[in-house]
Amino acid sequence: MRIGGVLNLLGKLLITLSLMLLTPIPFSLYFGDSMEATFLVCSAIGLVSGGVLLYLFLPEKELGHKDGFAIVAFSWIALALLGSLPYYISGVIPGFINSFFESMSGFTTTGSTILGDIESLPKSMLFWRTMTHWLGGMGIIVLTLAILPLLGIGGMQLFQAEVPGPTKDRLTPRIQNTARILWSVYLMLTVIETILLMLGGVDFFNALTHSFATLATGGFSNHNLSIAQYQSTYIQTVIIIFMFLAGANFTLHYRALNGKYKTYWKNEEFRFYLLIIIFVTLLITGANHFAGVYENLGRNLRDALFQVVSIMTTTGFGTANFDTWPPFCKILLITLMFVGGCAGSTGGGIKVVRFLLFFKYARTQLHKLVHPRQVETIKLGKIKVPQDVMIAILSFFAIYLAVFLGASLIITALGVDIVTGPSAVIATLNNIGPGLHLVGPTQNFGPLPSLAKLVLIFCMLAGRLELYTIAILLTPGYWKMIRKPLLRINKLS
Amino acid sequence: MRIGGVLNLLGKLLITLSLMLLTPIPFSLYFGDSMEATFLVCSAIGLVSGGVLLYLFLPEKELGHKDGFAIVAFSWIALALLGSLPYYISGVIPGFINSFFESMSGFTTTGSTILGDIESLPKSMLFWRTMTHWLGGMGIIVLTLAILPLLGIGGMQLFQAEVPGPTKDRLTPRIQNTARILWSVYLMLTVIETILLMLGGVDFFNALTHSFATLATGGFSNHNLSIAQYQSTYIQTVIIIFMFLAGANFTLHYRALNGKYKTYWKNEEFRFYLLIIIFVTLLITGANHFAGVYENLGRNLRDALFQVVSIMTTTGFGTANFDTWPPFCKILLITLMFVGGCAGSTGGGIKVVRFLLFFKYARTQLHKLVHPRQVETIKLGKIKVPQDVMIAILSFFAIYLAVFLGASLIITALGVDIVTGPSAVIATLNNIGPGLHLVGPTQNFGPLPSLAKLVLIFCMLAGRLELYTIAILLTPGYWKMIRKPLLRINKLS
Repeated sequence: MRIGGVLNLLGKLLITLSLMLLTPIPFSLYFGDSMEATFLVCSAIGLVSGGVLLYLFLPEKELGHKDGFAIVAFSWIALALLGSLPYYISGVIPGFINSFFESMSGFTTTGSTILGDIESLPKSMLFWRTMTHWLGGMGIIVLTLAILPLLGIGGMQLFQAEVPGPTKDRLTPRIQNTARILWSVYLMLTVIETILLMLGGVDFFNALTHSFATLATGGFSNHNLSIAQYQSTYIQTVIIIFMFLAGANFTLHYRALNGKYKTYWKNEEFRFYLLIIIFVTLLITGANHFAGVYENLGRNLRDALFQVVSIMTTTGFGTANFDTWPPFCKILLITLMFVGGCAGSTGGGIKVVRFLLFFKYARTQLHKLVHPRQVETIKLGKIKVPQDVMIAILSFFAIYLAVFLGASLIITALGVDIVTGPSAVIATLNNIGPGLHLVGPTQNFGPLPSLAKLVLIFCMLAGRLELYTIAILLTPGYWKMIRKPLLRINKLS
Repeated sequence: MRIGGVLNLLGKLLITLSLMLLTPIPFSLYFGDSMEATFLVCSAIGLVSGGVLLYLFLPEKELGHKDGFAIVAFSWIALALLGSLPYYISGVIPGFINSFFESMSGFTTTGSTILGDIESLPKSMLFWRTMTHWLGGMGIIVLTLAILPLLGIGGMQLFQAEVPGPTKDRLTPRIQNTARILWSVYLMLTVIETILLMLGGVDFFNALTHSFATLATGGFSNHNLSIAQYQSTYIQTVIIIFMFLAGANFTLHYRALNGKYKTYWKNEEFRFYLLIIIFVTLLITGANHFAGVYENLGRNLRDALFQVVSIMTTTGFGTANFDTWPPFCKILLITLMFVGGCAGSTGGGIKVVRFLLFFKYARTQLHKLVHPRQVETIKLGKIKVPQDVMIAILSFFAIYLAVFLGASLIITALGVDIVTGPSAVIATLNNIGPGLHLVGPTQNFGPLPSLAKLVLIFCMLAGRLELYTIAILLTPGYWKMIRKPLLRINKLS
């Protein structure tokens, strides 16, 4: 590993984030919440630390396969640390661990919060809170569609090339170009949602911040009631549509914007994603209807659809307290929490495509028992899935299970109850936001022990970075690969 | 498929069970509970139906690969049906579904019960209840060590040959010989446990029936308090040891009886099994100690060990109500419920070896990311695990997950709560016995809706027959394979 090159890149990222730390200042001035100084100080801290890294370490022309893991993991941690400073320095969030939790929840687009009364925060802090979502979402798109495929992580190489079409039509393989193209789509969708929300009567500030939280499938809302604050069917529908889009592969949006609308339907993962949403929404509407939870069928359907899309895309916005729905509905929603969004979206979770391939595999295994001599191949769309990709996907579930179990055990060992603990792990590992019981949709993570919060911060990060990225850093073999000379110090070279 | 041959074999099994239905009669006479007539009638019904099948259908010399699945599934259902008649006809269990539930729980060595007051049953019925365990356990040993490996199910071929040694030392491959050898081990262990329990002061009837339930990892006890009835450390220790033995691969016991004691330690699955039990027992003892659940450390350790071995081997006997233990302990126990016993034991669950290989695979995947060009092989003991066996094991988890989820959804849709429903599915699918909350260790399955009981009956069967056996019967492809002429009717041939 070329630690010098990694640290140099980290310096550049810190400086970029320092500039972003200036964006809440206009809001602070407009709303007069006196937070300008805080953001200026934080920005300065970021500039100085980034500058020191750039001064000490030279860039590397070629950063290799192994450096990628370190860059991804360390940059998320470093950015979340810098991003937590405004909360901590201004004192609007009590204590460093709480500030770091809130910041990591932002950058990983999780949306879990330790805040009981969100509305008491200064407006510029609320803006920064959703800005961290938005930046995290940008990072995730590039990570999953440009960086991880190069690193050969868990079959991610498959999702990039999956949409059929002539070669010249493929997204430019170089990371920078890919990033630019996808970010323009991301930015455009954010602008459109903001405008549509404003047309529904939402003020600019809330329209913009909720768009940030939607496109990142983050879920931070400025309202204690989350989206239940807006009882307008129009506003809720707009948010449903954009959550749905944010949970789909962004390469599909790019193609659609270039006139290739059929690309959505040709994509097997997208079809499966749409199908699950429709099917589960109908089941939940039916169950809530027969259980007498709603008198009005239209309202029932709207709430069911909102909650299903919000949870499946791992956004975590709420318009209804599903903790009061029948157990049948809760089990369906908990299942959706694990499924998550599509690969190449800003959504978290295990991802639709992994489940799709998982069950395709199980089916071929049964088929093989009946016809032992037939050779079975698994296809995704028109592409044959290579054996080693399939195995990488299957063992992803093993690592996932181990992290889920380990984290749940630690948290319950700290005295958290048996529903709150594991559901908090599910909510953070899948980057959703709210869990059940004490961390349910109307509650928050504030009362949990500090150590539990640190474990959940780890879960957010591990889930967001597709587990492998974090898991590999924990293997001794990885660190043995560090190249000598370890550092190419600027001054000495 | 040769349906005639399958039905002929089924006839033979029914006649065998009819003879076993006579075994409770001596107990009925001795205890004077007037159940002789019931058992005679049931035995006659079995003889007649078995006889009709033998009369109508000719045996087939060669029953093939595909017939195996049908024989296994149908014989378990048919035997459980015949075995439920004593309960139903005598009226000691109200209703047919309840009787069938209790009988299937016996034959699948699950041990779940719908009875609130077990002690009110006639002694001969209690005897029959544990006898169904014992027969089911016999069936399972032959199924997993002799039949399933021939059918190529989920890597079962691996577990039979796993113990290293010269070829002539291998268990005779023919099903009948294998069965005879393993049954002699099973019978011997039952006799030894019965004698050891009697030496501890247990009367012959209870010593015998509890040995039946232990060796089958069944869990039916004649006492409402289960094993908490016996507060003697000696008796509980004897039961712990035999539960532990019943949860280990029976081929190992056979080898050990032939003087090869090292065979246990050479077996990687056995080592892992022992390690998990020790490790989890210590964790639970520690957690219960710090939570102040027990004042006496010795009692704490004994209860922890008993519950860990009982749940991990899927026996389901209880000496303590773990529903009152700290959440940390409950999560550990719930995890053990999924792990289950060793392959080739009478224990249920996913099986220790599958978890072992699952995590080995995840580890090699991580290793591969660091060293992409290295070729990784997975070994179990000294044997290399073939790629297709590994894949069969991985996709077993997918089918397992689908059954668990589907059954949980149906049961909660019937109005069962979110802890009782899924835990009842876990308890039956893994053939354990008690679940949590309304079906917890001090409760029973009686109050559940009838339809939920039918779903749980399906879970017991699917779990017991390693899922594939049942799943394959549900694929349309299987039934297309039925050979014509469908039936070779005796009279026409």
